[in-house]
Amino acid sequence: MLEALKEKVWKANLDLVKHHLVLFTWGNVSEIDRASKLVVIKPSGVSYDEMRPEDMVVVDLNGNVVEGELRPSSDTPTHIEFYKAFPHVGGVTHTHSTYATAWAQAGRSIPFYGTTHADYFYGDIPCARSLTQAEIEGEYEKNTGLAIIEKFHEDKLNPLEVPGVLIKSHGVFAFGKDSDASVYNATVIEEVAKMATITEQVNPTVVRADKFMLEKHYQRKHGKNAYYGQKK
Amino acid sequence: MLEALKEKVWKANLDLVKHHLVLFTWGNVSEIDRASKLVVIKPSGVSYDEMRPEDMVVVDLNGNVVEGELRPSSDTPTHIEFYKAFPHVGGVTHTHSTYATAWAQAGRSIPFYGTTHADYFYGDIPCARSLTQAEIEGEYEKNTGLAIIEKFHEDKLNPLEVPGVLIKSHGVFAFGKDSDASVYNATVIEEVAKMATITEQVNPTVVRADKFMLEKHYQRKHGKNAYYGQKK
Amino acid sequence: MLEALKEKVWKANLDLVKHHLVLFTWGNVSEIDRASKLVVIKPSGVSYDEMRPEDMVVVDLNGNVVEGELRPSSDTPTHIEFYKAFPHVGGVTHTHSTYATAWAQAGRSIPFYGTTHADYFYGDIPCARSLTQAEIEGEYEKNTGLAIIEKFHEDKLNPLEVPGVLIKSHGVFAFGKDSDASVYNATVIEEVAKMATITEQVNPTVVRADKFMLEKHYQRKHGKNAYYGQKK
Amino acid sequence: MLEALKEKVWKANLDLVKHHLVLFTWGNVSEIDRASKLVVIKPSGVSYDEMRPEDMVVVDLNGNVVEGELRPSSDTPTHIEFYKAFPHVGGVTHTHSTYATAWAQAGRSIPFYGTTHADYFYGDIPCARSLTQAEIEGEYEKNTGLAIIEKFHEDKLNPLEVPGVLIKSHGVFAFGKDSDASVYNATVIEEVAKMATITEQVNPTVVRADKFMLEKHYQRKHGKNAYYGQKK
Repeated sequence: MLEALKEKVWKANLDLVKHHLVLFTWGNVSEIDRASKLVVIKPSGVSYDEMRPEDMVVVDLNGNVVEGELRPSSDTPTHIEFYKAFPHVGGVTHTHSTYATAWAQAGRSIPFYGTTHADYFYGDIPCARSLTQAEIEGEYEKNTGLAIIEKFHEDKLNPLEVPGVLIKSHGVFAFGKDSDASVYNATVIEEVAKMATITEQVNPTVVRADKFMLEKHYQRKHGKNAYYGQKK
Repeated sequence: MLEALKEKVWKANLDLVKHHLVLFTWGNVSEIDRASKLVVIKPSGVSYDEMRPEDMVVVDLNGNVVEGELRPSSDTPTHIEFYKAFPHVGGVTHTHSTYATAWAQAGRSIPFYGTTHADYFYGDIPCARSLTQAEIEGEYEKNTGLAIIEKFHEDKLNPLEVPGVLIKSHGVFAFGKDSDASVYNATVIEEVAKMATITEQVNPTVVRADKFMLEKHYQRKHGKNAYYGQKK
Repeated sequence: MLEALKEKVWKANLDLVKHHLVLFTWGNVSEIDRASKLVVIKPSGVSYDEMRPEDMVVVDLNGNVVEGELRPSSDTPTHIEFYKAFPHVGGVTHTHSTYATAWAQAGRSIPFYGTTHADYFYGDIPCARSLTQAEIEGEYEKNTGLAIIEKFHEDKLNPLEVPGVLIKSHGVFAFGKDSDASVYNATVIEEVAKMATITEQVNPTVVRADKFMLEKHYQRKHGKNAYYGQKK
Repeated sequence: MLEALKEKVWKANLDLVKHHLVLFTWGNVSEIDRASKLVVIKPSGVSYDEMRPEDMVVVDLNGNVVEGELRPSSDTPTHIEFYKAFPHVGGVTHTHSTYATAWAQAGRSIPFYGTTHADYFYGDIPCARSLTQAEIEGEYEKNTGLAIIEKFHEDKLNPLEVPGVLIKSHGVFAFGKDSDASVYNATVIEEVAKMATITEQVNPTVVRADKFMLEKHYQRKHGKNAYYGQKK
């Protein structure tokens, strides 16, 4: 079942290691097959170098395991909420990458300071609020997803235009049209978080870059008349 | 004698290099065989790439070398105090890893700022006090262990729930049920120390995360009803 | 056409990866053949590990593609302005390397703090101003070049003596007598930016090093009586 | 002539790359043969991966090339001053390693903050003064050595007990009984500089560790009754 997708999701999980986004088992990637409404995700607590494509777990949108010997990632309910709320999101990545997680722990959105940021994020990378005690003691992982979705609704954000988010005291979730794109965006978030840290260190009174630069850089890559890259 | 354990401890010492926790010979790992009350530990000042499993030294709980051509780590008396004081600790790792040692030099416990921390440490990572002149000029390495044990007793900490500690002006000791677990925890300490450094840089007025989040994250991995990872 | 130059420019682009200056496709290198007035440049948005020498694109100084199946780098108009304005510049590198980009985002020139800097830059590494809304919404990449050239003219800088520049809220452009030299200088900028960051952290009231040290170090490498390195 | 020593010095220079202390050609190592009073040193401006043992240059204590096709390092006169002033120094390393150079640029000695430092340096790592204009415009490299020697005399330092030094606005020189030991100490300086940077970041009011800890840690490795490492 979904063998090609398992192979793809497996490789996307290994890319977390390649891009230095994870220690041990501290991250997971999934992708949804919208036709069958099934999600392929990393198994929980399995190390990347022992993991095989056939270890990927298939779950439905109720969180039931449809195929797989292993337990799915404990963060599966968070991923599922995203697939339910965001119909154009095809892949989700979760990491505790160093700089981005520090910003999450600091409880700050990452301000738009330059074109590296604007090339992928159409505005600040938001930081969602802490969960309440009731949310944490209840369906914690599901509520993590809901708090993030709430933030996107409140701020009127499109998860393909702002394809990633921090959550207070926790870490990073990144989105994409597929699993590869979500890993790519998670990598961008870590680099942009590191750059923003140094930017503020070098100039503590720095302010956001100009809105028209954000517009220009985002659109030249992602807009209707995008001219970055090769014609597809 | 204890050939399998020597091989295991040798590999655990090499993992210090793999996880970027040591320069030169600046770290050591041991494990106790509780049945025989014998400890297998790295030899002193031998570089990791020249070291062979048969170079591991076997000592008893009085610090006498029971087997081995080489001198045991100069930190052996510290390890021994831990094995005597903490009956559930099976492995001990000592490092001078960069960020964690900086916190030790700063004389600060690492505050609980997020889930990366809570997944492994049930509270702050404590920093034990400086040794007195008498303690340093006396049985220094033994007294290092005693000062750390004092800190755990005073703060009512369980070394398997808070499996690591800094000691003022020195470095890191990490604990585990075996040598591998102690190396794992030493790696976590370094990453958590780095994250905490950046967290405070990005938000100098940051406070600890919520206690109920600590509870949740620690218990979902280590509690009675833990659901992270695969069933053993 | 220009096969040897394509091979050289291809290798110079790969050196961006080797020197840790780029993530994904975030950098590009070009070199001009002054005899034919043709520029060889990286194709847009193609990853370094898939790129082959024959993928390099040949453009003229009007920005027209003279040879090549792929679109040239979207930054090509910036490169072209440099070749038109600076007759002794033979190679241009553009990166978003971490520390240098943070200084660009901070909007600060990198002060001359020591000999590492002076060995390659005869004075501060300048930061050019932000573009105006009209400049960004017009011929953006061309205007980026023009704003940098304006800075060099205003400050009376020679792009082979100060072979690199930051541009506010964006990143780095480095120059050289050929493509290799421009990559070399881009690498120096990143290291010098990192050192300057730490220098100010360690001593917030640090001031520039002495002008006569700048003179000495720059001239012993690049002056008439240079004695660093081997006779050519 | 001195073939074994050339091979040794060549390897020691390559260790600069292995320990991440150099970019490009930014460092050099030498060793003296006290019997013949000849110094073997890296050639100037030659990259480490192209360099062969036979490229090492032999110079006498007047700086004359005794053997070798290539020019010796431009820093040779600095090395020679050390060999003349410090009869027990057998090897010298010069680097622009990132953190240590930042401290040099900041013009600060590195304070003794913990045992990592004390294991190799019997006190602060000193920072020598800037050279005067006359010193820089005269025999610059020789005067660099003399300013450092002046610092050691003024502060009554023994270069084998404090085997390294920063020089204002420039970089690092490290000493040892031979070339390998000097590279080792240069590596320690970089790590200790990084730790000190983070230590002050985490605790801006940190003070030096206790003098009796310095005494203990230095002596257990280097004193008469040293017990670290294996018997030689």
